[in-house]
Amino acid sequence: MLPAEVLEHAASEMMDWHGCGMSVMEMSHRGKEFVSIAEKAEKDLREIMNIPGNYKVLFLQGGATSQFAMVPMNLLRGKKSADYINTGQWSKKAIAEARRYCNVNVAATSEADNFMNVPPQSEWKHNPDAAYVHYTPNETIGGVEFHFIPETGSVPLVADMSSTILSRPIDVSKFGVIYAGAQKNIGPAGLTIVIIREDLIGEAVAGTPLMFSYKTHAENNSMYNTPPTYAWYIAGLVFEWIKNKGGLAGMAGINKRKAEKLYAFIDKSDMYRNPVDPACRSWMNVPFTLKNPDLDGRFLEQAKTAGLAALKGHRSVGGMRASIYNAMPEEGVDALIAFMQEFEKKNI
Amino acid sequence: MLPAEVLEHAASEMMDWHGCGMSVMEMSHRGKEFVSIAEKAEKDLREIMNIPGNYKVLFLQGGATSQFAMVPMNLLRGKKSADYINTGQWSKKAIAEARRYCNVNVAATSEADNFMNVPPQSEWKHNPDAAYVHYTPNETIGGVEFHFIPETGSVPLVADMSSTILSRPIDVSKFGVIYAGAQKNIGPAGLTIVIIREDLIGEAVAGTPLMFSYKTHAENNSMYNTPPTYAWYIAGLVFEWIKNKGGLAGMAGINKRKAEKLYAFIDKSDMYRNPVDPACRSWMNVPFTLKNPDLDGRFLEQAKTAGLAALKGHRSVGGMRASIYNAMPEEGVDALIAFMQEFEKKNI
Repeated sequence: MLPAEVLEHAASEMMDWHGCGMSVMEMSHRGKEFVSIAEKAEKDLREIMNIPGNYKVLFLQGGATSQFAMVPMNLLRGKKSADYINTGQWSKKAIAEARRYCNVNVAATSEADNFMNVPPQSEWKHNPDAAYVHYTPNETIGGVEFHFIPETGSVPLVADMSSTILSRPIDVSKFGVIYAGAQKNIGPAGLTIVIIREDLIGEAVAGTPLMFSYKTHAENNSMYNTPPTYAWYIAGLVFEWIKNKGGLAGMAGINKRKAEKLYAFIDKSDMYRNPVDPACRSWMNVPFTLKNPDLDGRFLEQAKTAGLAALKGHRSVGGMRASIYNAMPEEGVDALIAFMQEFEKKNI
Repeated sequence: MLPAEVLEHAASEMMDWHGCGMSVMEMSHRGKEFVSIAEKAEKDLREIMNIPGNYKVLFLQGGATSQFAMVPMNLLRGKKSADYINTGQWSKKAIAEARRYCNVNVAATSEADNFMNVPPQSEWKHNPDAAYVHYTPNETIGGVEFHFIPETGSVPLVADMSSTILSRPIDVSKFGVIYAGAQKNIGPAGLTIVIIREDLIGEAVAGTPLMFSYKTHAENNSMYNTPPTYAWYIAGLVFEWIKNKGGLAGMAGINKRKAEKLYAFIDKSDMYRNPVDPACRSWMNVPFTLKNPDLDGRFLEQAKTAGLAALKGHRSVGGMRASIYNAMPEEGVDALIAFMQEFEKKNI
């Protein structure tokens, strides 16, 4: 989902950006028009996330899945091992890819609890020689979120923030690397943001493709080759939209209210259930089940008729899942709750 | 440049694709709406390029620059060497990246002639143990194009077609791999098309990131992770537009006429000069110099005022360059010639 204002803005200047006679899709990435779009987007992102000056912001391709390899390829820096926290499907994918480049120490996992919680940091078993600690602050499928930033001392902390970036203020200085595929809270698919502390940019392991080296992109302002220009532009419009919503503090207020409302309704209903430890519930993805799963099909069908799309749970877990990213307005959550209430009345 | 009809179409359905209530940018890549867009785009591309059934068509990220590494990582298949033809700046980049993975035999090069021609195939020095032969059918900076398909027997032929794909019919069955960044003739930046013969998809070298393995993408219909959905959609609109123009035969007729007109004018003028061997002149990129380079600045400035943008030659060679890709209508070339004629009259 993208904010309607952003889509309207993009449609209105599709044929001609700011009177230059070109669509953004037609601009050379080295021309002054696109460079101004790119620089403004980075400036706005730095402002809303309060990114310290010793961090580079990269606008890349390839999704978080590419980062699963880029992180070990670039951050091992002679070390042989990295720590990973396993809290769900995305953690597992990151771990599987990292295993191809180093020894992975799974310092903590909630797999035995079916990923319904976040293991408390006091129980994590760190390897003192780890090159970095990797975790997934929000797991989209399980709907589990870290409501704290792990403390890792001098070991760089790496976060796959794809599904939670820009949902609230975070202290970037606590991280070595933050990466995020754009398609949840930033913009259209095909853009990946990497925020990396400068001292971590160095020589990647031998055999790393030039395009998988952070150095390549950091030294060329993400324009070593043609970047995904249109997605970068749309991301810029989203950053502006966030500024107009009161920045990340504003977004956090809205997101917290949306999530609390929906969880409160689920918890007091007799028909719906969310299985996640309340201390680790996601603000972005709210999975829930129906007491009688035979009604799943009817629920989804009637929800669709009511204009509520994309409520089916991930194919790996079933049930339902409401994704209430930044672009979902509070009225959307209200409409969902009203529909769920009505459905419960009729079917219990 | 993109066809105006394509941009208008995209703007008109930005907020709501075919009445589904969503923008294409908001669709899940696994939802039936986007899957129908993706499948239609592939079907149309197969139809206009007449791609045989034993080839996979992949819709990837990362640009041709990523392919410079993916090709050796995937196609070496136990061999130690590959043949490359060096006809300009893009060939050189492909060679430099391949050298990180194998021995590169430069089977032919026109570097001594300042890349003003294509070495005749009779003079190429092939390595019989080469895993593949790589060439760049069109060099955008030098404006040099192959007007023949090299014969490589049973050794797979690999082509970086970024700047010439879809400009005319080609016999895909002569190739092992064709790859192309989308931003010249296909659609917006951020999408890369790979057309690969199925028997060449196999085990990549150890250490290849999952995202750099053709197998990953071939086995998942380019949806192993979230693909660049909006760029894929725009590419589909361009394929439809080409079909409406009479397919690649239709495009070839238009492109040949556009190029011949411009070269004929340059050759008979006293002010302008194109240095490329007439047998190897590009239909897509026409570099030219002014007899008196002191007039370059004035030429560019007045051209811009006349609505003729992006005529500056690449920073590595200087001079001028007219890029007359598919989306440039014949009237655009006529307007350029008229301007050049007028400029010559006033300044000679």
